[in-house]
Amino acid sequence: MKKQIGVHERLYPNPVVLVSSSYEEIANIITLAWVGTVCSNPPLISISIRPSRFSHKLIKQSKEFVINIPSEAQIDICQYCGSKSGEEFDKFKKLNLTKGKSKKINTPSITECPINIECKVKDIISLGTHDLFIGEVLATSSDAELVYEDGDIDYDKLNTLTYCMGKYYKISGVK
Amino acid sequence: MKKQIGVHERLYPNPVVLVSSSYEEIANIITLAWVGTVCSNPPLISISIRPSRFSHKLIKQSKEFVINIPSEAQIDICQYCGSKSGEEFDKFKKLNLTKGKSKKINTPSITECPINIECKVKDIISLGTHDLFIGEVLATSSDAELVYEDGDIDYDKLNTLTYCMGKYYKISGVK
Repeated sequence: MKKQIGVHERLYPNPVVLVSSSYEEIANIITLAWVGTVCSNPPLISISIRPSRFSHKLIKQSKEFVINIPSEAQIDICQYCGSKSGEEFDKFKKLNLTKGKSKKINTPSITECPINIECKVKDIISLGTHDLFIGEVLATSSDAELVYEDGDIDYDKLNTLTYCMGKYYKISGVK
Repeated sequence: MKKQIGVHERLYPNPVVLVSSSYEEIANIITLAWVGTVCSNPPLISISIRPSRFSHKLIKQSKEFVINIPSEAQIDICQYCGSKSGEEFDKFKKLNLTKGKSKKINTPSITECPINIECKVKDIISLGTHDLFIGEVLATSSDAELVYEDGDIDYDKLNTLTYCMGKYYKISGVK
């Protein structure tokens, strides 16, 4: 039997990523689950952020961001960066994270995250409570031990996280 | 040590959903992983589809779709609907799936899927190989046994799937 449960965005599970941003000398990190691949050529990834967020301001000015995919061990970092604003202090310093030099953009990646996807903002679409940033992937780096010879990533080694209504989950292979 | 792995859309894991569509008397189902929540008010979900797909044609004409979230047991349906075109035959019939009557739109849901999210297309954005359909959530239904008293869904009972580079994965709670 079906039950009506109202008008909500009920799409789960979602990815969990740490998005780094910077403008001039200021850098920040925000945890996002409302992110998704939207096009293969050009390779585009979208991220949704509320205009009130500090990361929104930085990305709107720099037109850049890095998607850092965390491993399961970095769940505490995800929880912290998803609940604290970086307007008053530098989350990289606070969490002892390293600002990695990006290949194609000025925004630093998070060196400790196993995968770093550098994006240049192509478009910003105002949707309501959230703005959708469409980012073009300009470069991707991975921890060397996760990469097969053909350049693909072995996600079974990575142990990424996924997100469902306030909780983080591990993933495990089915087929 | 980091390794450069080229310019790809490397965002994982992704949700796995069965999107149902219809126009006039024709209905179809496509498995998508490039979907995401993009706004909370209005509640918006985006789905990316190649213009060559049959579902693209139906949704473009009807301006409607239903996101049906499958359970782990429906992995074979996901694999089938992600690899076969519905241009020649009706996947609902082929897979013995029931066309559920939607509350707010004409497009049928998949009754056998535990969660059905009815969406009205607000915008279609051409990105390149894929078009981004922005859908507003008009109604959501869930199998009654998955719903808490407050209307939230118990995702631990649902056992959704997630998707990483060609493989389906189960999820399991962390914290």
